[in-house]
Amino acid sequence: MKLILLLVAVASFFPADGEIAAAEVKVSEATQACIECHRVVHPGIVADWQRSRHAAVTPQEALGVQGVGRKVSSPAVPGGLAETAVGCAECHTLRPGEHADTFEHNGTDIHIVVSPGDCRTCHVQEADQYSKNIMAHAYKNLADNALYNDLERSILGRAQRKGGRWTFEPPNAATKAESCYYCHGTKLKVTGKEVRNTDLAGELEFPQIEGWPNQGVGRVNLDGTLGSCAACHTRHQFSIETARKPYTCKECHVGPDVPVNKVYESSKHGNLFSTHNQDWEFKAVPWTIGKDFAAPTCAACHVSLVVNTEGDVVAQRSHQMNDRLPWRLFGLVYAHPHPISPDTTVIRNRNGQPLPTDLDGGVATPFLIDAAEMDRRRRTLQAVCLGCHGTSWVNGQWARFENTVRETNAKTLDATRILQRVWAAGLAAGPDRKGSPFDEAIERRWADIWLLYANTTRFASAMGCGGDYGVFANGRYEMNKAIAEMQDWFDLRQALLRPKTP
Amino acid sequence: MKLILLLVAVASFFPADGEIAAAEVKVSEATQACIECHRVVHPGIVADWQRSRHAAVTPQEALGVQGVGRKVSSPAVPGGLAETAVGCAECHTLRPGEHADTFEHNGTDIHIVVSPGDCRTCHVQEADQYSKNIMAHAYKNLADNALYNDLERSILGRAQRKGGRWTFEPPNAATKAESCYYCHGTKLKVTGKEVRNTDLAGELEFPQIEGWPNQGVGRVNLDGTLGSCAACHTRHQFSIETARKPYTCKECHVGPDVPVNKVYESSKHGNLFSTHNQDWEFKAVPWTIGKDFAAPTCAACHVSLVVNTEGDVVAQRSHQMNDRLPWRLFGLVYAHPHPISPDTTVIRNRNGQPLPTDLDGGVATPFLIDAAEMDRRRRTLQAVCLGCHGTSWVNGQWARFENTVRETNAKTLDATRILQRVWAAGLAAGPDRKGSPFDEAIERRWADIWLLYANTTRFASAMGCGGDYGVFANGRYEMNKAIAEMQDWFDLRQALLRPKTP
Amino acid sequence: MKLILLLVAVASFFPADGEIAAAEVKVSEATQACIECHRVVHPGIVADWQRSRHAAVTPQEALGVQGVGRKVSSPAVPGGLAETAVGCAECHTLRPGEHADTFEHNGTDIHIVVSPGDCRTCHVQEADQYSKNIMAHAYKNLADNALYNDLERSILGRAQRKGGRWTFEPPNAATKAESCYYCHGTKLKVTGKEVRNTDLAGELEFPQIEGWPNQGVGRVNLDGTLGSCAACHTRHQFSIETARKPYTCKECHVGPDVPVNKVYESSKHGNLFSTHNQDWEFKAVPWTIGKDFAAPTCAACHVSLVVNTEGDVVAQRSHQMNDRLPWRLFGLVYAHPHPISPDTTVIRNRNGQPLPTDLDGGVATPFLIDAAEMDRRRRTLQAVCLGCHGTSWVNGQWARFENTVRETNAKTLDATRILQRVWAAGLAAGPDRKGSPFDEAIERRWADIWLLYANTTRFASAMGCGGDYGVFANGRYEMNKAIAEMQDWFDLRQALLRPKTP
Repeated sequence: MKLILLLVAVASFFPADGEIAAAEVKVSEATQACIECHRVVHPGIVADWQRSRHAAVTPQEALGVQGVGRKVSSPAVPGGLAETAVGCAECHTLRPGEHADTFEHNGTDIHIVVSPGDCRTCHVQEADQYSKNIMAHAYKNLADNALYNDLERSILGRAQRKGGRWTFEPPNAATKAESCYYCHGTKLKVTGKEVRNTDLAGELEFPQIEGWPNQGVGRVNLDGTLGSCAACHTRHQFSIETARKPYTCKECHVGPDVPVNKVYESSKHGNLFSTHNQDWEFKAVPWTIGKDFAAPTCAACHVSLVVNTEGDVVAQRSHQMNDRLPWRLFGLVYAHPHPISPDTTVIRNRNGQPLPTDLDGGVATPFLIDAAEMDRRRRTLQAVCLGCHGTSWVNGQWARFENTVRETNAKTLDATRILQRVWAAGLAAGPDRKGSPFDEAIERRWADIWLLYANTTRFASAMGCGGDYGVFANGRYEMNKAIAEMQDWFDLRQALLRPKTP
Repeated sequence: MKLILLLVAVASFFPADGEIAAAEVKVSEATQACIECHRVVHPGIVADWQRSRHAAVTPQEALGVQGVGRKVSSPAVPGGLAETAVGCAECHTLRPGEHADTFEHNGTDIHIVVSPGDCRTCHVQEADQYSKNIMAHAYKNLADNALYNDLERSILGRAQRKGGRWTFEPPNAATKAESCYYCHGTKLKVTGKEVRNTDLAGELEFPQIEGWPNQGVGRVNLDGTLGSCAACHTRHQFSIETARKPYTCKECHVGPDVPVNKVYESSKHGNLFSTHNQDWEFKAVPWTIGKDFAAPTCAACHVSLVVNTEGDVVAQRSHQMNDRLPWRLFGLVYAHPHPISPDTTVIRNRNGQPLPTDLDGGVATPFLIDAAEMDRRRRTLQAVCLGCHGTSWVNGQWARFENTVRETNAKTLDATRILQRVWAAGLAAGPDRKGSPFDEAIERRWADIWLLYANTTRFASAMGCGGDYGVFANGRYEMNKAIAEMQDWFDLRQALLRPKTP
Repeated sequence: MKLILLLVAVASFFPADGEIAAAEVKVSEATQACIECHRVVHPGIVADWQRSRHAAVTPQEALGVQGVGRKVSSPAVPGGLAETAVGCAECHTLRPGEHADTFEHNGTDIHIVVSPGDCRTCHVQEADQYSKNIMAHAYKNLADNALYNDLERSILGRAQRKGGRWTFEPPNAATKAESCYYCHGTKLKVTGKEVRNTDLAGELEFPQIEGWPNQGVGRVNLDGTLGSCAACHTRHQFSIETARKPYTCKECHVGPDVPVNKVYESSKHGNLFSTHNQDWEFKAVPWTIGKDFAAPTCAACHVSLVVNTEGDVVAQRSHQMNDRLPWRLFGLVYAHPHPISPDTTVIRNRNGQPLPTDLDGGVATPFLIDAAEMDRRRRTLQAVCLGCHGTSWVNGQWARFENTVRETNAKTLDATRILQRVWAAGLAAGPDRKGSPFDEAIERRWADIWLLYANTTRFASAMGCGGDYGVFANGRYEMNKAIAEMQDWFDLRQALLRPKTP
């Protein structure tokens, strides 16, 4: 029976005649009208949707599933939507009054940007969880934090040296949209209308949208909701397979600041995924350890509903992705317990800065989860580990990991002490002289230490892959080298420039 | 029917008895003679060929295909070749008088190195297009450009510091062949003969070929033709699947100078390819968007004949790979419009240097394509984008990309200004003092900026993957850091060494 | 028939009811008892084993195979083991008196850590070969070499600058276990017992093991044997497919010190693997060139039993992995012939240091293999190359490779000469002043040259992939840049600090 399903899956990828594959599922008239033109002008989108579960199952059928296999978490869906496939019109005409980009298109009011507010119609639980996810707030968390803005400007802006100080031409919107905000999400805004001459329908009017295109995890949508479900559930197939394979997370987590994909790929788990994933089952809900997959992907540990071969729930699905994470490894400037609020702009450290830690390594305790919550999250994640590993294995792994959180924080503090001496010696303008801590050469070398090397070391530790990324590949080797270089830079200038120390 | 083909494909990979798989296709006697020995001494090559389309279809059959599905572009093939499989002898004995490595081997005149001049017998259109491709000229474009030679020597040569200047022992031929010219292609030359004792035929004489082995894209062949079709259509299966998957392009485009594979792999397109490619069809000609593949590979955007689900041509096949590219992103020293001639040694900037731009960012306009041609190429590529994306999406993406071309060029100019001040202050020997601009420490740091970081940022932008490669992974973060370091280096020496400025 | 096997493989991955898949193979009562509980508490392990060959074939059946297809190399196995599947109890209760972690668990004496000493029961030849493999000694080779310890401390330790010298707080055991010793292997030691409350059996006592978890290649086991077969033959499927695909080697060979996976992935061989491996056969023994695979993986060149399509042995299986390697490319400090003894702590260079070369590039000849043995190994590996390449190709490739060994050694010597001048000028404390050669900023930059860039260049050369890794990606570009920076550092300090030169 499995065999038959497999062959059907292959066959359905190649619809013999281009007709809608799942012919037995009713498609609304509105959607049929969309497809008529768009299959010609954007064949890729239409074909993608035809392969989707949205095209093959009606919400009514989906609501009929009982137990943990149910994918539609809303208790019911509006009557008009229940009995047809979830097609173009079903999503792009939802809640027209709430979308600033709603416009009349061949007789129908449609909007371009489908938002979590729309997806919530059927997937209420996932949308609500995600709204509590730190990612949903990624736009504001960066754009409305003065200190992060300073770092952003020092990276993106065009630098000019004037009077011994750096000044930055602010990066333009296009640069920001394709760099930091590519992942964080842009803030969308309708700025006007334009008329375009189309191949199939002559002149048509379309809204102009600032910040478009974007599929960042914290996109500020035109209905005010936050995020883009398509960041992970890539349109228009919205395949759970896409979200469960590690390549989706890689889109934003491959760089040296958060090199989780690189670390995963070279871990034992990543080895098994790469070697055997073609024999695994990525569409099953719930997802059964050992039966459907033999080593975790990102989703298995951090998001998915995972059960054992008896059907017992090992981990509940959660779209609040830090629900299984006690520590926030991404050093700002030090690794720290996860923030309580997904809106991190509320955080103040003891110096009043919008940072979860201060420069001396102290944590902004009132804004971060406490030990009890950390322990709850630790145990939630460990339940997944225990699916394949004994208790002594799991405890050993975690003890090493939490040791590494401490040790990398300690080395970051050592580096910060050197920088503080540099500032005190007047060799760079730090916060004491109202300078940015991110813009001068020596400060940038310091940033490498916590932003690249400490982070890499911690992610390597977390995923139990200490080998290369914990040592040579942006890990401890580079960290100690950078500390030595900072000291070397300081020693030379101390010896030669002899500025007055305060 | 699809199912059956699939199973046959699997089965044919494992010929039950080692006999030639496609028994029904006639194999020439000459080829049969080759196989008799070579199946024993080089079994991998023979088996590879047995799985090839060349072994399964005669040119005559291939010529019978009408319309866009036809793969043999020559109007006809020489009579002796039409009715048998395209085997060992068919290619290795073609045009014997033109190949300097032709030698008598067990009674037949064969040549070792098959060239585009040979492949052109059946594939005239592809060979002619490729000859106009900048890649075909990659040997000369590097070897015959004095300035690039200078850069090459500063990278490959053994450096010695003498009298405050660097001198370089020229890299030997072996080093050059496996580094720059591994991709650019070597210049082949027959230097003599050697006798080797063979397992199956005793003593045999073979030509000795300088520059061999090599499969670089601009190899200068022993018949004078340029390039190696096997660079992408890997011998001896010559599978279009190989050429269409991104791993082929990765062979030469993975390094930090042209990190297109790294960027692609972490893009949305790359995610979909990695996640779903096992369900896609990579052998169909033409290649149908949505039906055969759901996200583009390198080939889909830059080379292949792509059609929509109605069979309309979206993009014509082109082996002149910049046919869809208005901009040359690879900074020399700045990104610029593509050169008109694939032979770039003809270019002179306004200072008479063989560079498409000058150090102040000016472009060598007479040698580069004009705005109209840029627009034509832009629209040719955008037609592929539109296969899955709306016009506002595509326009938004391109506006960002062309903004990034300008912005990275501007930052490169900022860095160049610092270097020019360094030269003016006598702290390094630049062109004004007849020094190489590439050999001293501060000049090498400058090269990082345009050769690695500006390029990476641009490729990340071009492929709509701004996240990590546009920011931390050799992108803007490193670019601004390097500029700060250059300034820091200059400031220290200005303060301490106080050389006379001119 | 092939088709049927393929489908069975797919089907068996998804046991319909969770029952043991290979029902026709007898499972011992002891193993059945293990599975009863562990299928619930660690479902992943049990399911993994159920898919293994160990679950599907008895040793007796395996012993019946004649010729090169035989996988059990021991002439016989103890009677009690021959007729049942190789299950939990078969391995975890073997040789109970020899394992320090043997403990009573629900009525059975089991040990947690299965060792090569256990695997040797059936796989004597592989265990004995591996014991002569340098990897088996990776713990001692690092931990018991004073000079490598010095390097390790400079990378892992917390650095403090005192009186112009660096001192290091020794890294703790947890840090060491997840960094260097993650791959090298930890030294396991039973330190006590602990009682844990278990879900299914209430309070149970377990041994506490220092250094656990670990699967490093040189793990020192609790029975005194060295290594972990599971490093490559990942538990509990122990699939030969896992060991043969390159992702396994990647676990420890992806970093910039030994970037073999990065180089392989961007080589022609890696391209073909990535593009076509889903159609190849990774479980066949022996492994036939051309029939089972069309391009080599790590295992094909370095480990596996490879035959041609006539069944002739091209390369014998060897778990002494340098059996086909004349050169040790990993520079310490220079590339050199492979050590004779896998225990490299016995080596002394002519200055009495425990290094295979001295700082001037001289090799510790008495401890390294001689030219005849190098030639034997070269020819053993070349036999694999010749499976797909002609003699002139193979000879050309090897000539380039050995040229690169010489050239990178020569450049490393150039860099070392600069460092020696730095030491002589008193600008850093080298061996002459009893200083570590690895801890100061300038020394760390020197280490980049041999540890990262020379190694990368050599691995790129060895795998015939000179393109990016031989030039820009941590290759020659970075090597010459680092040499220029070292000189620049020295020149500035010579000019300004004017210390007395000796």
